[in-house]
Amino acid sequence: MNRSILTVVMIGLLVWSCADTAQAAADREKLLKDPGVYGSFAVFKIDGDWWRLDKTTRGSAAAEVKAIFQKHADTVTADTYLLRGLSEKADFFVRVHSMEMLNNQNFLVDLMGTTFGKYIQNTDTFNGITKMANYVPAFPDVLKEAMKTPPDPGPKSYVIVVPIRKDAEWWITAQDGRGTMMKEHADATVTYLKTVKRKLYHSSGLDDLDFITYFETAKLDDFNNLVIGLQRVNENHHNKQFGSPTLLGTIHSLDDILEIFSR
Amino acid sequence: MNRSILTVVMIGLLVWSCADTAQAAADREKLLKDPGVYGSFAVFKIDGDWWRLDKTTRGSAAAEVKAIFQKHADTVTADTYLLRGLSEKADFFVRVHSMEMLNNQNFLVDLMGTTFGKYIQNTDTFNGITKMANYVPAFPDVLKEAMKTPPDPGPKSYVIVVPIRKDAEWWITAQDGRGTMMKEHADATVTYLKTVKRKLYHSSGLDDLDFITYFETAKLDDFNNLVIGLQRVNENHHNKQFGSPTLLGTIHSLDDILEIFSR
Amino acid sequence: MNRSILTVVMIGLLVWSCADTAQAAADREKLLKDPGVYGSFAVFKIDGDWWRLDKTTRGSAAAEVKAIFQKHADTVTADTYLLRGLSEKADFFVRVHSMEMLNNQNFLVDLMGTTFGKYIQNTDTFNGITKMANYVPAFPDVLKEAMKTPPDPGPKSYVIVVPIRKDAEWWITAQDGRGTMMKEHADATVTYLKTVKRKLYHSSGLDDLDFITYFETAKLDDFNNLVIGLQRVNENHHNKQFGSPTLLGTIHSLDDILEIFSR
Amino acid sequence: MNRSILTVVMIGLLVWSCADTAQAAADREKLLKDPGVYGSFAVFKIDGDWWRLDKTTRGSAAAEVKAIFQKHADTVTADTYLLRGLSEKADFFVRVHSMEMLNNQNFLVDLMGTTFGKYIQNTDTFNGITKMANYVPAFPDVLKEAMKTPPDPGPKSYVIVVPIRKDAEWWITAQDGRGTMMKEHADATVTYLKTVKRKLYHSSGLDDLDFITYFETAKLDDFNNLVIGLQRVNENHHNKQFGSPTLLGTIHSLDDILEIFSR
Amino acid sequence: MNRSILTVVMIGLLVWSCADTAQAAADREKLLKDPGVYGSFAVFKIDGDWWRLDKTTRGSAAAEVKAIFQKHADTVTADTYLLRGLSEKADFFVRVHSMEMLNNQNFLVDLMGTTFGKYIQNTDTFNGITKMANYVPAFPDVLKEAMKTPPDPGPKSYVIVVPIRKDAEWWITAQDGRGTMMKEHADATVTYLKTVKRKLYHSSGLDDLDFITYFETAKLDDFNNLVIGLQRVNENHHNKQFGSPTLLGTIHSLDDILEIFSR
Repeated sequence: MNRSILTVVMIGLLVWSCADTAQAAADREKLLKDPGVYGSFAVFKIDGDWWRLDKTTRGSAAAEVKAIFQKHADTVTADTYLLRGLSEKADFFVRVHSMEMLNNQNFLVDLMGTTFGKYIQNTDTFNGITKMANYVPAFPDVLKEAMKTPPDPGPKSYVIVVPIRKDAEWWITAQDGRGTMMKEHADATVTYLKTVKRKLYHSSGLDDLDFITYFETAKLDDFNNLVIGLQRVNENHHNKQFGSPTLLGTIHSLDDILEIFSR
Repeated sequence: MNRSILTVVMIGLLVWSCADTAQAAADREKLLKDPGVYGSFAVFKIDGDWWRLDKTTRGSAAAEVKAIFQKHADTVTADTYLLRGLSEKADFFVRVHSMEMLNNQNFLVDLMGTTFGKYIQNTDTFNGITKMANYVPAFPDVLKEAMKTPPDPGPKSYVIVVPIRKDAEWWITAQDGRGTMMKEHADATVTYLKTVKRKLYHSSGLDDLDFITYFETAKLDDFNNLVIGLQRVNENHHNKQFGSPTLLGTIHSLDDILEIFSR
Repeated sequence: MNRSILTVVMIGLLVWSCADTAQAAADREKLLKDPGVYGSFAVFKIDGDWWRLDKTTRGSAAAEVKAIFQKHADTVTADTYLLRGLSEKADFFVRVHSMEMLNNQNFLVDLMGTTFGKYIQNTDTFNGITKMANYVPAFPDVLKEAMKTPPDPGPKSYVIVVPIRKDAEWWITAQDGRGTMMKEHADATVTYLKTVKRKLYHSSGLDDLDFITYFETAKLDDFNNLVIGLQRVNENHHNKQFGSPTLLGTIHSLDDILEIFSR
Repeated sequence: MNRSILTVVMIGLLVWSCADTAQAAADREKLLKDPGVYGSFAVFKIDGDWWRLDKTTRGSAAAEVKAIFQKHADTVTADTYLLRGLSEKADFFVRVHSMEMLNNQNFLVDLMGTTFGKYIQNTDTFNGITKMANYVPAFPDVLKEAMKTPPDPGPKSYVIVVPIRKDAEWWITAQDGRGTMMKEHADATVTYLKTVKRKLYHSSGLDDLDFITYFETAKLDDFNNLVIGLQRVNENHHNKQFGSPTLLGTIHSLDDILEIFSR
Repeated sequence: MNRSILTVVMIGLLVWSCADTAQAAADREKLLKDPGVYGSFAVFKIDGDWWRLDKTTRGSAAAEVKAIFQKHADTVTADTYLLRGLSEKADFFVRVHSMEMLNNQNFLVDLMGTTFGKYIQNTDTFNGITKMANYVPAFPDVLKEAMKTPPDPGPKSYVIVVPIRKDAEWWITAQDGRGTMMKEHADATVTYLKTVKRKLYHSSGLDDLDFITYFETAKLDDFNNLVIGLQRVNENHHNKQFGSPTLLGTIHSLDDILEIFSR
């Protein structure tokens, strides 16, 4: 028994150390910036049984997880986040990007097939695709310019994910009418471009959502004010679902996450 | 114990190899095309306990499942799909067609009675019936012609199932008024006929739904755009339920599915 | 242990064989036809543990269940239905009729107190009372006559139960206004009187429902069309709840049901 | 082990027999009639494990429960009701009255701390306070007089609890407007004052409810007609929640309830 | 085994007794009064298994919990409340304040990582931030003065937490219009300032809420009247969610809470 655990640990470490990440890895920058990329947010809650396993077992299970991340590193890029303590709904989530939804599925099926995977419940999965900006091209130049404000450098500790569904009225409104509302929406965000990073995924038909909105920030007070600003524009009349669940967590490397779960 | 497992495996294989599929099988083409066919979508989540069984047990359980598919092959046709990784709600679903709902029930009761069946939860079942097209006969000829566009050849990896319920207003609207809205709906689909295959089931009274809409595609970006197009027509005002759950998965043979669950 | 099982089986058989069903039994015809009869629909899902019991235990548990049905046969009449395979919500339900709700409760408490009862979850219970027709007396004679059409002879395989709740507007509408809407509703049913049998229970205050509608049919395509017809009349505007859950199943004797669960 | 069970049983019996109920008991009449009394309806479902315990264990657990009822008899009065068989949501509930909500909590914490308490799930708790009648003083004398009709003597077998929440419109309507609607409501109840006993608790801020309405009757057909009558008055437009859950059960002494659960 | 328990107990006591609470502790007064403080309400239900542990194990687990509270005492202030008996949803909750949400998370992750933490389910977490009063500056002086009424001295036994979400209409209304409604709201609270203490947290974007309202009182009848008063003002039209869940409980020190759970 001990020996087989050791083997798994060693294989995990071997895979990890040998992988030439610079060469084999999916092009992370491209996946995080380009349109036409598929994103899956897989949210998990850990079973009570997990915490009652001994440390060695949990440690070797963690090594198996790392090996799976490595195995898929040439097709998917995966980021990890800690929800535990700030959300009753789940303990962590993984954001997966790739050029084909099938790659996301293959990675997640493998992750759920590990020893650790047998002790986690998949409580939510949001699927989406990235696209070119829809309304920005018609915005006034001054707003377009303002929207290019880069976020302040420095680490952003917090992540917030807000799934959104629009009402029928929204979709049936002509492009112009929606554009006017989205301009008002964009105006409300300008003040917070430096402290709140954001990314948008389109979900209609890929999930019971229209959009997944993803945010990173070091200042939750600014984020609270940003959301209040967005609630005050007309476009908010058309949000049939805004959050529910809102996921609030902190950004952590896979190593950090696994360390917290192996304590 | 080992011996009884062997027996089950051998019986399974025997049934499988001996069945003269060409002769005994339900007429698959007919069931997939004709009106008056009953379809049941049985959605399942696998219990945590399953994954902790040893490989031999899982292997022999898989053989039992194949035997059940064979046993009912002369009355039902059954297709299998993998949801795991892309949906938190379930791991796989089976789409069953036959000339009588009772056949669907008998098959599913037998499936749930296998060893594997004792480790799965039936999380959703959608029941419906196929019918002649209701609004198409009154469409303009040019639209009728366009709707005959065959889907591009080649495999379609992805499946999407969207259950739908209409509001009272929809049903009380006269046939003409509904026809006008459905023409607008059909117009929005023309662009995607080559890349998205579709099939419709009627569910009023057979389930808490009015329609089950089923799609196959190799291009999820096209499917996302198709759904956005459908959200932009007036008929969308009358969708009391659209999805919830939307099932997004991949198309796999029974052998593939069982292999994935026996790893 | 084996001996006590044998005893239970023998007592069960004894009770069963000795009961003079002709004399002791509740007047089934009266209970199924008269107003003022209390009906309870008790819906159950079987625990996973049940299916892992050995056949002998399941067989003797089945005998216990039969004995309970016999024990209460002089006060309640109970019919059994199989949902498994066609509904994710439950595996079977029992429809109980008697002259006092207390009799229904006593029977169901005893049923749930058997060995089998310890392996089932009561997922839903609908309670109602039968009454004289409310709107029919004011219908035109030709409709009254049409409504007397007897159902076609021959077995009806399928059962459908649809719980219904009306909105406040419905109840506050005067008797005349409701009568006009119910005439339109009745007109829509005439075509299907031969192939769809129906029965109505009133539930206001006895459950979170206003009505339980119960149907038997051999032709589910007719039933689908009947429901579409009912959705197209004005009374449908006032259905705050229609189904949810709709129970679709097949009609089976207690012996059949127990045989299926003892396989 | 047997000895400790015996001890518990004996202590239970001792406490029970020695308690001078006439002197120590909370003033039941006062608690059931006065304004300013706090009522808690604690609803429970029994775990499957309970039914698999042997009879001796269940018997001694029942004695423990009786001892807790006695221990708190000088501060709370507690009534017990059987839901099992008539409601899928729970098996029984306890209605607790006292002069301070804290007393209700202390009693219920102790009850849930018994051996029996470890095998029950608290599925619902409704909290409220009794008050002087709000609208009656302004009713016409003839209605005031009619409302004094005492209920018929004789046992009432059935209990029904209906939690209610009003919409914002109701609360914002002036006292006069609400009074007019409540007079209409009261008029609808007059016919049933003899056969349906009732009691009202106010819950705003103490629970996610505005009112808990409690009824006792021997005639469920009358109760069904009473509720239909109440659905037909304008005040019903303002019931955002009416029931959900409606609790229908039978009135039983603690001894009866414990006997049923110890069978 | 016994020895390791003893060690944990002793370390817990040591940490507890040695901590120089006056010096190391977070500035409790500041955290409870200042704007810009992050509050997390973590609500828990205890597993059935916990109550079946022996007293010694539960006692040493309690000591571990105390040690965690001490470990984080320099960054967070944490208050504890008992819900058991008055709410079916949970047994207790912890209100955590600190200058960074990350501190709240770290504390709660550690709490959930204790032995006790393995036996509790996190059923709800509400996150918010304190801010300067938004509408008060524009209130008339007489109302401003009235709002400074200090609460009566003496212990407040009861706690009530009411999460609130406003509709789009509210947010889109201009500051003036909202101010008028909030003045009406404030007027309704004046009568109860002496007997009901209150505190407000802003949650937009940090949770699926807009506000967390927190109350302490010794008089639940006054609190019931206060809420009725608040339901009668126009601002109530804009409460999309008010409670659900409303948490009603009693205020207890950590020692008290742990004693109750160790009985």
